[in-house]
Amino acid sequence: MLTVAYDGTAYCGWQLQPGKETIESVLNRCLSELTGETIEVIGASRTDSGVHALGNIAVFDTDSSIPAEKFSYALNRRLPEDIRVRGSREVAADFHPRHCDSIKTYEYRICNAAFPIPTKRLYAHFTYVPLDVCLMNRAAAYLVGEHDFKSFCSADTQAQTTVRRIDSIAVWKEDGVGNHTAADENACTAGREALQYDREIVIRVAGGGFLYNMVRIIAGTLMEVGREKIPPERVKDILAACDRQAAGPTAPACGLTLVGYEFRL
Amino acid sequence: MLTVAYDGTAYCGWQLQPGKETIESVLNRCLSELTGETIEVIGASRTDSGVHALGNIAVFDTDSSIPAEKFSYALNRRLPEDIRVRGSREVAADFHPRHCDSIKTYEYRICNAAFPIPTKRLYAHFTYVPLDVCLMNRAAAYLVGEHDFKSFCSADTQAQTTVRRIDSIAVWKEDGVGNHTAADENACTAGREALQYDREIVIRVAGGGFLYNMVRIIAGTLMEVGREKIPPERVKDILAACDRQAAGPTAPACGLTLVGYEFRL
Repeated sequence: MLTVAYDGTAYCGWQLQPGKETIESVLNRCLSELTGETIEVIGASRTDSGVHALGNIAVFDTDSSIPAEKFSYALNRRLPEDIRVRGSREVAADFHPRHCDSIKTYEYRICNAAFPIPTKRLYAHFTYVPLDVCLMNRAAAYLVGEHDFKSFCSADTQAQTTVRRIDSIAVWKEDGVGNHTAADENACTAGREALQYDREIVIRVAGGGFLYNMVRIIAGTLMEVGREKIPPERVKDILAACDRQAAGPTAPACGLTLVGYEFRL
Repeated sequence: MLTVAYDGTAYCGWQLQPGKETIESVLNRCLSELTGETIEVIGASRTDSGVHALGNIAVFDTDSSIPAEKFSYALNRRLPEDIRVRGSREVAADFHPRHCDSIKTYEYRICNAAFPIPTKRLYAHFTYVPLDVCLMNRAAAYLVGEHDFKSFCSADTQAQTTVRRIDSIAVWKEDGVGNHTAADENACTAGREALQYDREIVIRVAGGGFLYNMVRIIAGTLMEVGREKIPPERVKDILAACDRQAAGPTAPACGLTLVGYEFRL
């Protein structure tokens, strides 16, 4: 079992696609080269094109004599810089990362400033419309628990049921600004504005499983609440509608990161 | 006067170089296209190749009828995604951003984890050697004040004096991890490790001016202290030596960001 982090910018998502570079295709290729076997990984989360990960999970079978714990080091020597294996371990042969009880945590990052910040552009969605984090948190509270999330699922889902369980949602603003010498009131403010650069709003969602695009639709809906287009209470009605049209837009992929997994082995 | 943010990854630094794409060349080109004049900006900090900025300053002369405050919007429509003008204003015709009293703030970011984090690789220097932030802060305190920083300056400097004033240095660790549900002790820890992803160490230095590579040599030296190769007190002797050989190595460019400027107009 590998814990895999990646910058999804350059990849067509996790899942194998003919003629396209995906996280799965790179892992299969590097693992096959390393072991001399034909390796096919099974991923826990088949993230979309442009989505990032800090801790996705991949499992595979091998007869290799390389100790499980050493795979991470050996693989990282072959992987491109934008994919890193953060840990490797042996698991039971019948362990399947999508067919087990787990808690998945996603973060959706929003750069909420007057102008986009170039060093954030690949890892946070930018909007200059000021978002009210308190309203977003009040709205998010209605989503916690077991619900039918049909309104928060892409219409073309193949899921047998749209009932899912969300364990927690938190929305907060990161200032990222440490203490700085108080500026003279005659001083130019250009510097001070720049010092307050990483005003990022983070939506962290943890749950037992997510429908296709569910986190991005939740983020898109909470942004509508944050800009006061939708009152927080309306989220109750959106859930009840069981209709994708009732919810907000699907937020762009670049803001989304699969942070990690927890499960029992 | 423009306040300019950029991702330095794709550029050969700020300063014009024949045949190379630099921040200055892109600004000159876009400003000249916008105004129909031949514009040449003067930058406050001529950052090195690969160094980033949140608030560098550029000034230029123009007869354009575009209001000063509108330049930011007009320029951002022409600039590539990795350069953004965060503000524009009129300043006195004789204002020179390098010949004025100012406080410049730089940050040096270090990703200090067992494995590199792909989404951080362009904006933080990676080291797996654990760094002790307390030792780094104790060492940094010796650098605050007016000193001859010859030991912290590239040997090929053309500066007339190597005396500079540092107003503050702070070193801290950013965890970036909010509250998370306490994990069951039998649960797989892969997820929990991933949740503690952005263990970044930040060195923030503010001062009246910096010698060539000075912040990167300070960062390289503080990292030697953090890994216990140099005791914090030794920094006093390194300063006194007035010899580049006495200090630590020059830390890589990608970790460095010019955060902002403050000055009187």
